Amino acid sequence: MDRPHRVVIIGGGFGGLNAALTLKRAPVQITLLDRRNFHLFQPLLYQVATGGLSPANIAAPLRAVLRRQKNTEVLLAEVLDINVTERRVLLREGDGLGYDTLIVATGARHHYFGKHHWEQLAPGLKTIEDATDIRRRILLAFEVAEREADLARRRACLTFVIVGAGPTGVELAGTIGELAHITLRDNFRRINPAEACILLLEGTDRVLPSFPPKLSIKAARALARLGVTVQTNTIVIDVQPDAVTVRRADQAERIPAHTILWAAGVLASPLSGILAKATGAELDRAGRVIVQPDLTLPGHPEVFVLGDMAHCKGADGKPVPGVAPAAIQQGQYVGRVLSRRLRGETTPPFHYKDRGSMATIGRSAAVADLGWVRFSGLPAWLAWLFIHLIYLIGFQNRLLVLLQWSWNYYTRNRAARLITGDGAPRSPEARG
Amino acid sequence: MDRPHRVVIIGGGFGGLNAALTLKRAPVQITLLDRRNFHLFQPLLYQVATGGLSPANIAAPLRAVLRRQKNTEVLLAEVLDINVTERRVLLREGDGLGYDTLIVATGARHHYFGKHHWEQLAPGLKTIEDATDIRRRILLAFEVAEREADLARRRACLTFVIVGAGPTGVELAGTIGELAHITLRDNFRRINPAEACILLLEGTDRVLPSFPPKLSIKAARALARLGVTVQTNTIVIDVQPDAVTVRRADQAERIPAHTILWAAGVLASPLSGILAKATGAELDRAGRVIVQPDLTLPGHPEVFVLGDMAHCKGADGKPVPGVAPAAIQQGQYVGRVLSRRLRGETTPPFHYKDRGSMATIGRSAAVADLGWVRFSGLPAWLAWLFIHLIYLIGFQNRLLVLLQWSWNYYTRNRAARLITGDGAPRSPEARG
Repeated sequence: MDRPHRVVIIGGGFGGLNAALTLKRAPVQITLLDRRNFHLFQPLLYQVATGGLSPANIAAPLRAVLRRQKNTEVLLAEVLDINVTERRVLLREGDGLGYDTLIVATGARHHYFGKHHWEQLAPGLKTIEDATDIRRRILLAFEVAEREADLARRRACLTFVIVGAGPTGVELAGTIGELAHITLRDNFRRINPAEACILLLEGTDRVLPSFPPKLSIKAARALARLGVTVQTNTIVIDVQPDAVTVRRADQAERIPAHTILWAAGVLASPLSGILAKATGAELDRAGRVIVQPDLTLPGHPEVFVLGDMAHCKGADGKPVPGVAPAAIQQGQYVGRVLSRRLRGETTPPFHYKDRGSMATIGRSAAVADLGWVRFSGLPAWLAWLFIHLIYLIGFQNRLLVLLQWSWNYYTRNRAARLITGDGAPRSPEARG
Repeated sequence: MDRPHRVVIIGGGFGGLNAALTLKRAPVQITLLDRRNFHLFQPLLYQVATGGLSPANIAAPLRAVLRRQKNTEVLLAEVLDINVTERRVLLREGDGLGYDTLIVATGARHHYFGKHHWEQLAPGLKTIEDATDIRRRILLAFEVAEREADLARRRACLTFVIVGAGPTGVELAGTIGELAHITLRDNFRRINPAEACILLLEGTDRVLPSFPPKLSIKAARALARLGVTVQTNTIVIDVQPDAVTVRRADQAERIPAHTILWAAGVLASPLSGILAKATGAELDRAGRVIVQPDLTLPGHPEVFVLGDMAHCKGADGKPVPGVAPAAIQQGQYVGRVLSRRLRGETTPPFHYKDRGSMATIGRSAAVADLGWVRFSGLPAWLAWLFIHLIYLIGFQNRLLVLLQWSWNYYTRNRAARLITGDGAPRSPEARG
C-alpha cells in the first residue's frame, strides 16, 4: 500500500496504552488520543484520595511512556463524534482524524442510576481530580469537626458513608479507618478522630460480592478491626447535602453525614452510545457496547472496543469483568489481532485469563482469590503490593511508591494529607 | 495568673511555624491559625511548577508537625479582622478568638502594581495551586503547539515569558529551559521542544540584582546555556492574552507569548493594612508594616509582625530581605522575646544573620553568595541542594525529594508532568 495503515486509539488507559505498546513493531502509523497527558494507574487512586500517595506516583506521562515508539504519536484531544462510514474521528480541537483501524477504550464513569444530581453530593473515584477532591472532603471533615461546638453537627462531620462494597469501596473504607484510628492520632485537641463513624453500605448480602463468600467474611472482619461498620442489604434511596437516606429491611433511615462517597455502579463512556447508534451494536444495562468475540463491532471489523466500555462474553458465557487485568489483556489481544491481520493471518477469539482478584483493607490486611488458591492477611497484602508495583508503569513511580508505602507502613503516617483545589484558597491574600 | 497566657499565631509559614516551635516549653496556650492545613516550603515551589516535585514533597501537614506540642492547637480558619483594643481576632468560621499576645505572619503575594487584571494572564508563584496551574500552562503550551499548524501561532505557543529576574524568575526560566531542551526531547513528533523561546525580562541592568555583580554574570551565562534569553532594562507596560508589551530603550515591543509568568514584585498580605489602620503603624511601598526593632507594633508590645509582611530595619539601616531564613530567624526571635518577657526579662533588638543568598539555574548550575565566600557551578548547586534539604520539614519529604532529584538528575526526567486542575477534565465521560 502507498501509505501506512493508520490506527487511531482513543484513550490512554490500560486498554488503549497496551494496544499501542503491542503494535510497537507493526507496520502501522498510530495516533493515541487522550484528554489527559498521562496514563493513570486507577487501582491505586484510593491511596491518593486518602493522602497515602501523590498523584504523580500513580500517573505516567503518555509521551514519556511512548517517546521511543517511533510509529506512535500522542495527541491531547477530546473526541466529539465518530463517523464509521467515512472512518473519521471528530475532535474538539480543530479538524478530524481519518483512520483505517479504530481502537476505542475510553473506560467508564460512575453510575448514579439516573440521579445525576447525586454526583456533586457523593463523588465517585475515577480521576486524579476526583481523588484530590475526595481527599479534601475527608480531611476538611475532621477540620470542621475540630471547630464545631454542636455535638450533633460534630457527629455528622465525623460520619463517613461509602456507598458500595466492591474493591474500591472496601479499600476506601479501610484506609479512612486507618486515617481516623492511626494516622490522625494526637493531631487534634478537641475531637478524637478515632470516634469517627465509617459506614460501608452494600446492596447485596456481603462485602466484595464478586469474591468467594469465605473472603467476604475475612474482609468484613478486617474492616471491623479498622472501625468500619458494614451494613449489607442496604439501598441508598436519597442523597442530600450532609445526609444520606437508606432502606434496610423495608425500613427507611436518614443518616446525617458530612462526607458521602460513591463506589456503587459504573456506566460506560458516552462514546459507546455513539458507536452503538452508528453501527447498530447493542448496549447492555451499564451502557457497554456488546462486542464480537474478537472485540470488534458487528459489521465493522476495523473498529475495536475494549476495556470497561466493552461487554465481552467470556468462555463461560459471563461477561469479562471490568478490571485492569482484563483491559490490559484485551489491549494486547487487539494489538496482536491487528498485526496478524496485516499479515493476512486470523486470530482465535479473545480469551480472558482470570488471574484472580484482590482487595486490600488498610495496613497489612488483604484478601486474594487467585482461583487456584485463596488467602488473606499479610501474605495477601504482600502479594497485592507486589502485583501492583509490577503493573505500575515507570520505574521511578515504583521506587517512590514502594518507599512511600514502607514509610507509611512503619510510621503509620500519610504525608500527602494536603487540602488543595476547589474551596482551598488560591492566593495567600488575607491568609491566616 | 489564673489562666495561661493565650498566644494567637496567624500564618503557618516559616515565621509563624518557627514562633510556635520556639514556644514549645513556654507557659502559654498557643493557637496557630492558617487557611491551609500544611506548611509550604515555598523556595521549592518552582520545582512543582515545572514537574520535578509533587506538592506533597514540599508541604508538611501542620498538625503532623505540631502533634506532640501539647501547648499548641492548630485551627484551619481565615482571619477577617483584628481588634487590637479588645485583643480579639475575627474569623470567617464562627466566633472570634481572644489573645494576650498576637503574632502575625501571613506573608506576601505578587505585586502587579495596580494592574490586578494581569494576574489572570500572568500568574505568580506563591501557592500549591499557583504551582499546579503554572505547570498546567507550561505543559499545555507544548501540547497546543504540537497540534498547531499555523507557524506564527505555534511560535507563540512555544514562547515563555518570565517577568522578573530575581531568584524565583531565574529558577523558573532555568527549569523551563531544561524542560524544553532535555526532559521533553523525543516527546513530540511535529514540534521540537528545544525550539522554545524562553524570555527572562528584568527591569534593572542585570539578573539577580540583589546578588553581587560577578554572580549575576555567571547566572546569565548559565541561563544562556539552557537556552534562556535574558532581556535587562526591560519594563512590562501591558499584558494581554497571548502577548506581552515591553519597553526597552524607549522602544515599545509586543511579544506574542502563550505563557507569561510573573516573578516581579511582592505585596504584603492585606492584614498589614488592617494592623496599620488599627495601630497607626506605617506601611512601606510594598504594603509591609514598619515594625519596631523588637518586631512589635508601636504602642502595642503584645502584637508582633514578622516575615514577608514586616518591614524591619537591619543593623545597616537597610530592611531585612523577604527571604525564608529571615522569616525563620524572626519567628525564633519572637518566640524567645515572649518566653523571656513572661519571665520578666528583656531581649535585645532583632538582628538578622545574613547567611547569604543562593539561586539555582537548572541541572547542576547555581550561584551562591555566603558573604564570606562566593561560588557557582556544581559546588554551589550541591550546597543549594544540601541547605534546602536541611530546611525541608519532615524526614519523609527530605528522603523523597532527594530520591526524586537524584532520579531526575540522572535520567534528566521529570515525572510529575501532570496536566491537572482547571481546564483539565474532571470525569472520564466522553474521554478520548
